[in-house]
Amino acid sequence: MCHAQSKFSTKGVERLGIPEIWMADGPHGVRAEISWDDWAYAGWTNDSITAFPALTCLAASFNPELSSQYGFSLGEEARYRKKDVLLGPGVNIYRTPLNGRNFEYMGEDPFLASTMVVPYIKGVQKNGVAACVKHYTLNNQEHWRDKINVEVSDRALYEIYLPAFKASVKEAGVWSIMGSYNKFRGKYTTHHPLLNKILKADWEFDGVVISDWSSAHSTEESALYGLDLEMGTGTDGLGTTTNDFYSQYYLAAPFLEGLKKGDFPQSIVDDKVRRILRLMFRTNMSTNRPLGNANTKAHHDVARHVATDGIVLLKNKENFFPIKDNKDLTIAIIGENATRSMTAGGGSSELKPKFEISPLDGIRARYKHATITHAMGYQTGPSLYNEVIPPTLDLDSLKTEAIKTAKNADIVLFVGGLNKSHLQDCEGDDRLQFGLPFGQEDLLNDIYNVNKNIGFILVTGNAIEMPWLDKVNALLETWYLGSMSGHAIADIISGDVNPSGKLPFSFPVKLEDNAAHSFGTSSYPGENMTQYYKEDILVGYRWHDTKKIKPLYAFGYGLSYTSFTLSDIKTDKKVYTQEDSITVSCSLKNTGTINGSEVIQVYIGKPKSKVKRALKELKGFQKTNLKHSEESIINANIPVKSLAYYDETISDWNIEKGEYIVYIGNASDNISKKIKISIK
Amino acid sequence: MCHAQSKFSTKGVERLGIPEIWMADGPHGVRAEISWDDWAYAGWTNDSITAFPALTCLAASFNPELSSQYGFSLGEEARYRKKDVLLGPGVNIYRTPLNGRNFEYMGEDPFLASTMVVPYIKGVQKNGVAACVKHYTLNNQEHWRDKINVEVSDRALYEIYLPAFKASVKEAGVWSIMGSYNKFRGKYTTHHPLLNKILKADWEFDGVVISDWSSAHSTEESALYGLDLEMGTGTDGLGTTTNDFYSQYYLAAPFLEGLKKGDFPQSIVDDKVRRILRLMFRTNMSTNRPLGNANTKAHHDVARHVATDGIVLLKNKENFFPIKDNKDLTIAIIGENATRSMTAGGGSSELKPKFEISPLDGIRARYKHATITHAMGYQTGPSLYNEVIPPTLDLDSLKTEAIKTAKNADIVLFVGGLNKSHLQDCEGDDRLQFGLPFGQEDLLNDIYNVNKNIGFILVTGNAIEMPWLDKVNALLETWYLGSMSGHAIADIISGDVNPSGKLPFSFPVKLEDNAAHSFGTSSYPGENMTQYYKEDILVGYRWHDTKKIKPLYAFGYGLSYTSFTLSDIKTDKKVYTQEDSITVSCSLKNTGTINGSEVIQVYIGKPKSKVKRALKELKGFQKTNLKHSEESIINANIPVKSLAYYDETISDWNIEKGEYIVYIGNASDNISKKIKISIK
Repeated sequence: MCHAQSKFSTKGVERLGIPEIWMADGPHGVRAEISWDDWAYAGWTNDSITAFPALTCLAASFNPELSSQYGFSLGEEARYRKKDVLLGPGVNIYRTPLNGRNFEYMGEDPFLASTMVVPYIKGVQKNGVAACVKHYTLNNQEHWRDKINVEVSDRALYEIYLPAFKASVKEAGVWSIMGSYNKFRGKYTTHHPLLNKILKADWEFDGVVISDWSSAHSTEESALYGLDLEMGTGTDGLGTTTNDFYSQYYLAAPFLEGLKKGDFPQSIVDDKVRRILRLMFRTNMSTNRPLGNANTKAHHDVARHVATDGIVLLKNKENFFPIKDNKDLTIAIIGENATRSMTAGGGSSELKPKFEISPLDGIRARYKHATITHAMGYQTGPSLYNEVIPPTLDLDSLKTEAIKTAKNADIVLFVGGLNKSHLQDCEGDDRLQFGLPFGQEDLLNDIYNVNKNIGFILVTGNAIEMPWLDKVNALLETWYLGSMSGHAIADIISGDVNPSGKLPFSFPVKLEDNAAHSFGTSSYPGENMTQYYKEDILVGYRWHDTKKIKPLYAFGYGLSYTSFTLSDIKTDKKVYTQEDSITVSCSLKNTGTINGSEVIQVYIGKPKSKVKRALKELKGFQKTNLKHSEESIINANIPVKSLAYYDETISDWNIEKGEYIVYIGNASDNISKKIKISIK
Repeated sequence: MCHAQSKFSTKGVERLGIPEIWMADGPHGVRAEISWDDWAYAGWTNDSITAFPALTCLAASFNPELSSQYGFSLGEEARYRKKDVLLGPGVNIYRTPLNGRNFEYMGEDPFLASTMVVPYIKGVQKNGVAACVKHYTLNNQEHWRDKINVEVSDRALYEIYLPAFKASVKEAGVWSIMGSYNKFRGKYTTHHPLLNKILKADWEFDGVVISDWSSAHSTEESALYGLDLEMGTGTDGLGTTTNDFYSQYYLAAPFLEGLKKGDFPQSIVDDKVRRILRLMFRTNMSTNRPLGNANTKAHHDVARHVATDGIVLLKNKENFFPIKDNKDLTIAIIGENATRSMTAGGGSSELKPKFEISPLDGIRARYKHATITHAMGYQTGPSLYNEVIPPTLDLDSLKTEAIKTAKNADIVLFVGGLNKSHLQDCEGDDRLQFGLPFGQEDLLNDIYNVNKNIGFILVTGNAIEMPWLDKVNALLETWYLGSMSGHAIADIISGDVNPSGKLPFSFPVKLEDNAAHSFGTSSYPGENMTQYYKEDILVGYRWHDTKKIKPLYAFGYGLSYTSFTLSDIKTDKKVYTQEDSITVSCSLKNTGTINGSEVIQVYIGKPKSKVKRALKELKGFQKTNLKHSEESIINANIPVKSLAYYDETISDWNIEKGEYIVYIGNASDNISKKIKISIK
């Protein structure tokens, strides 16, 4: 019951009719079938699915309803594929832009991540498929992830790193949770006292704690410290045959032996099995599961909608975008990312989509009259996980061709950024550089010398450095968009869809401006396999705001093709009790000529406090679609309880009395009004 | 919908949420997982199951209640293994003892096969798993099975070869049926007018006709002649890539093309899809399926019970059996079959049981006081499908050791017979000899020279020639018994269970005494790829009875350790109408000193007929367990309708009026009483 029988399944108890549990990787889609006992793909032909946009894009949509549709659609595909547990979503907080796995997570803000993850989980689980929220916890970098020991204050833990997990449990009722590889205060988090204390006791989590694959390290700790189901443990020191192998898992024969010897009380195994059975009653033993489906038009539409809602327009000088389709226009599409698969590679989130529309294909499909030219410009080789190795091309020729192509065009769309290769946006290690890799900056400069009308379509799951920013007229952050990638990008650049995404994490000007990196290697990546989260609670915009370090692009920032004005911004009261909700209202008007959506954001700060405080913290947001000239009243309700800080002196949440400031705007660095309120 | 996507699954329609169908070989247990696209085993570790006795053994039990338990238990295992269709049972009629696949079928009599198959199918299907009765039809030999054209009269077809299929459809409501490889009257049976005419129109079969793997040969015939689902078609002349391959199945792209061109009406595909959807609603789309289980004690008990009920005691001179466990006794177990796996090999019925108790292991486990010695005596090498190749031993040494072992024993148990290797009891070809293979007869003679106290434990799925019969004091036909083989054999030889099995087919003295073989090669195996069933309706005991050719062991024959007497044998009336049932009753008494079961058999014949008739045909049987000295009244009800013959002049069933003779006994050659009745 408590350990794997293969890479992605557990054995069940056949004599009792207790079924196997089948799992699949994939916050962004259901991963292809893996071999029974190794990581090679199984070579099946029934496992091509819809690739949904990466979770950074979903977070950037600031649209919980879309998150619900995303989760439900993905859950339908998992159910069709006969999976009982879908290994996602990921809600580790974005601490450093170098983390290779940020693209699988929901940004730097615990409130945003919490708000976005809850409907995703509920959507998945409506299908009788368990979501498995991951990685619990403090797995905020891939470098040294297997061994790194994280030292962080209780306050930062509770206020920054745990809230999205808590919301997954308390609000979404998630049925499983995945441990992480790293240590916290010297103990591996996959079997850690905090699983019993916080997750199972305080939050009353009634689901299953699943190890990450090979993250369990001890029978005693697995038995006692809250791990329920051990998956993926490696071969070191274990048996030689397949059967021996799984039977020697920490929670297999050694656990049984410990139980028989009385090292562990029977109640320990009863609790684990009860949780696993409960998960089964919710999934593979449920008689009223729907049957699921896959690759439906509805799923493709959801994928495209999330993509267009999450793309962030960062710069748009002289209305570079949208670009009208015009037969006199020649658009040069430059860059490997215009054609490169971004569902291949990246680690466990790698997908085998039924199709993947590349940016080039999407733009060509949309622009029927303009002349679309294309040059790759550079070539980076296959992704670590990608089996198809393209022929190696001569880099000088590629560059020369790209410059020539750009020179002959009216508009250059540079489709670049990172990719899913090792040391880029990829599980298993972190990025080695903050800047654009693969000589893209040089190429961009060369193109700029022949054509200054450049729009940059930035394909990343992370912030990057942009010393070249003034050389481009426009900049779109398009993330990794999955199956409908090219169509969604064409929707935005053509103006068929007005961009409305907002950054779910800050883009610092330089790496040292990021909180985690401002303290040197003891903070990131750690020294002697330990790291100290010295920025404490001041993660992301909290750091930039509080330390007055202006970011290149701020959290919550994102442009539109139309304009909005905020007016009549107010709170319902001036003085609140601790039981009250603060209702913030304002009037939002689309003052431009086209339809569009805007995200009104409410931050709250406490200027005078007995404890360290961020200048302001996101406490509410509302995305609203308005026709041109339309005006609407926006309301946000913020429970006063959500203003509590984690008080380490009492090991509990504490709502400080006194004056607070409510900040209302459309970005963390674009506040329209500040209102003082008071908590009694 | 209408063709495979892999070796054992169909694709479904993911966009509509129509699920895949997963199938598994196995009338005797659920076969191990096969690779996606070739016959190699997948190497999974969750597919070890209970191996039940071969269907010949089940038929020999003459116990329909056990057949129900067999089917239900097997269905539970199939369900636990997530199979939607179980590819069995097989009910091809035993026509020749050379047929390599007889062990998978239910003997030579259509009434016995019908009576035994119905509860099996119902049992399987109670689990939401479709049984797939096979092979429809006239697949009565393996030699040339892919091409042989069978010519047989309508009468023999309807009276001998179809009844068990008809019972499967009309009485058991089977959800799928498998076509066969051979031709009938020049057309492949997998897509044959008789599927539409007899199965779907006359019998109103509402399930799915599935091809045998590679038995479809034509798009037009598949489309028009009743095939619904094409599986296993080979690569010849088809595409080169995996995807191409399945899309070029006869019922894939070529069928679609034909539909689009109007070669076939839309109603043709509607009917096929409706049938497939109906099967899905009964199986993988059903919301009230149980979950199944596997390797339960209950299943092992059923396997053992079927085995002990089906083992046939053929000879027992001077009460050789049962053998008491006695510390002064030395029993020599001689023969490869004492230790050889009989679940490995044999073709598609090959199984991967969780365990298989060999005869030697079973006897050793039962005999705690006697000295059990063992010698292999001969060695035959691995089965065709068996991957484990034993070390090759020196045959002379083996023989010498066996003779020595036999000489030093009080009793010799020779465990021999056939095995599951190619050209033995194995799918794909027929046996080449009627006698004992592998030099067993020589070995037996050599053993006889040193020890005359020999009991032969005959492990086969077929009749064999027995020129050595007078050299053994006792003979047990033990069939292939699966997981519990050795325990069941020990149950019988120890007397823990009193044998009660009856032969489901005749053992001729010599091959030429068998009906099919008495007409030379045009009858078997055929000439110029055509064969004529010249014996017509006179199959099995019908031939021996009618032609007065005494068999070595007759159909329905089998001894007990106790004795029974039949008395007061009567029919309820003398004259019947065509709507009546004939009630035959008798008093059965266990006149011995131990408990036991007897099978009372009722045959009926028509001495004077306007058509050719068998002397008698089985029309009823009843197995009854009686304590020693117990007596019981046995009743059998036989509808007069069941006396009809297939009248080729009207192409329908016809009940001839006049005098009939009812034969009541405990074997086809041991009739206690004949009663004349008359049909008005």
